Amino acid sequence: MNVGAVILAGGRGTRFWPLSRRARPKQVLDLTGEGTLLARTLARLDGVATGPWLVVTGPDMLDAVRPEAVGAELIVEPSARNTLPAIALGTWEAGRRGAEVVVVLPSDHHVANVTAFAHALSQAISVSQRGSLVTLGVRPTRAETGFGWIEPAQDGRVARFVEKPPQAVADALFAGGRHLWNAGIFVFRVDAFRAALRLHCAGTAAALDRLDGGATAAEVWPSCEATSLDYGVMERHADVRVVPLDCGWSDVGSWPALDEVLPAAPWGAGLCKEMVEIDARRNLVHAEGKLVALVGVDDLIVVDTPDVILVARRSDAQRVRELLEVLDARGLARYG
Amino acid sequence: MNVGAVILAGGRGTRFWPLSRRARPKQVLDLTGEGTLLARTLARLDGVATGPWLVVTGPDMLDAVRPEAVGAELIVEPSARNTLPAIALGTWEAGRRGAEVVVVLPSDHHVANVTAFAHALSQAISVSQRGSLVTLGVRPTRAETGFGWIEPAQDGRVARFVEKPPQAVADALFAGGRHLWNAGIFVFRVDAFRAALRLHCAGTAAALDRLDGGATAAEVWPSCEATSLDYGVMERHADVRVVPLDCGWSDVGSWPALDEVLPAAPWGAGLCKEMVEIDARRNLVHAEGKLVALVGVDDLIVVDTPDVILVARRSDAQRVRELLEVLDARGLARYG
Repeated sequence: MNVGAVILAGGRGTRFWPLSRRARPKQVLDLTGEGTLLARTLARLDGVATGPWLVVTGPDMLDAVRPEAVGAELIVEPSARNTLPAIALGTWEAGRRGAEVVVVLPSDHHVANVTAFAHALSQAISVSQRGSLVTLGVRPTRAETGFGWIEPAQDGRVARFVEKPPQAVADALFAGGRHLWNAGIFVFRVDAFRAALRLHCAGTAAALDRLDGGATAAEVWPSCEATSLDYGVMERHADVRVVPLDCGWSDVGSWPALDEVLPAAPWGAGLCKEMVEIDARRNLVHAEGKLVALVGVDDLIVVDTPDVILVARRSDAQRVRELLEVLDARGLARYG
Repeated sequence: MNVGAVILAGGRGTRFWPLSRRARPKQVLDLTGEGTLLARTLARLDGVATGPWLVVTGPDMLDAVRPEAVGAELIVEPSARNTLPAIALGTWEAGRRGAEVVVVLPSDHHVANVTAFAHALSQAISVSQRGSLVTLGVRPTRAETGFGWIEPAQDGRVARFVEKPPQAVADALFAGGRHLWNAGIFVFRVDAFRAALRLHCAGTAAALDRLDGGATAAEVWPSCEATSLDYGVMERHADVRVVPLDCGWSDVGSWPALDEVLPAAPWGAGLCKEMVEIDARRNLVHAEGKLVALVGVDDLIVVDTPDVILVARRSDAQRVRELLEVLDARGLARYG
């Protein structure tokens, strides 16, 4: 059986600015010193997905993505239109290249336990054989409001999807111990996906069918619905199953999340050549090749790049996005 | 009349680490974007001191000092032995080159009003004609405990020198409005200085006399007293006069002192290419050629160099010296 992979690498990932830029998005960053997130995503497929491997990305990211997409073919999405068109395009192209099953993966996540990840993915591939659409559900480690949650039924089906919940709901879901995080990792048979798409997003399915007749992605793209796979298909489909994933997963959602994924360093959390601290605590640094000296400072994020330095309070990490707006407003978009 | 200048450029200035290093001391730093402190010190002598100009510095700083000592001759002090031997050596050498009067200047201070500085120096040269040793006294702007103070008498003589005072004394001196700061700027006739040295530091005077007989500085150096000119001569001498100096002087004693001397920048105090701030206040940055982005941080010092980044709380600026000890202890002295 040919198991293909569709890796989504079109996101911008602004929250890792200034390391990430328009032309150098989060998935091509090496945040831990162990390789870029995209390269490690592909490496995790070895022995699990036979191929083809397709990396779907935007036209302005090709130069950055190509060197990290070893063993994969690049598929260009004409513009960013949420995950449904990108996954559908990738699945269509994988099917044309002989894939019978497709594994869909974000390219900017971290996995600590690769063996556990491969095991869950193999299990999901097996479950997908019956024609179900399968999603992997991450065992939660906190009452996160930033993720969608999955409520599993007794029989392995998904009872329901819970959109990003308010804190009280997230607290209850986490305390209950049954719900899982939606990590955006999906497995399905190509024919099952195409059938589901015809059922729930007929316009998109019809548009993509034109690829078989020789149309280009650019030609069919305007007819595809700009929505997420979750909203467009998974939440509407009857036969969706969930396979639990317990592998030290992280979406590496912002600078402070690096604490979860960085290998233990003698100087604490950070990536730099050396660190010297006097009365300094809980600081996160990224300054490749440099000595970082901290005196009397706590809870800071310090990021150095060849043309930009960011110093931010840890609790303000999400506000890096505001900085990009300020840059645009001040005519400094070239730094964004 | 030949007015020579002896510029003291042998100090290490560790408090501006990591911009300053062993081989790149404070006096050869361009802290304001207007030229190095040493180069600007020499430029201020134009039209005031006819020459020769002698820059006294250490053997390990020659490469850094030479390009900044335009129009001056370098005099190498064999080792750092406080100011008395350096000033005496410089004055001897200036005398041998025809100087009748010598102006002694530190090389790492800032002067905002160059015209006022030149005027005070000319006045001091004039006063020194009578054979007095003359010191310039800076009009104080705060009750500083880190400087020596000068108490002027009615007739222009120095009534007494006050060593670095405790805070209560400094408060009283500042409130009284009569005392001046000792800025380490001196003017005297060469013959008057030699006579005073013979009187108060006979050993040093005798050692330096051997230079006239062909001895080298290295040969006479061990016989010179390792003390300051203030302690060795000025505080003991009967005929010392003071000329007030009111020229926006700063000794640029540590990173926070840059607030006093930096030209107003659109982004506040700092030297960088661009600065973008969100909820950030009173931060001082030095990151040449870079965009600096600050989010949610106050009262920080951020210094970027090609191999080191320092982030320190403003109130801990003096502890940069401790960092250098930590570097030595950790085998990282190459960064010091």
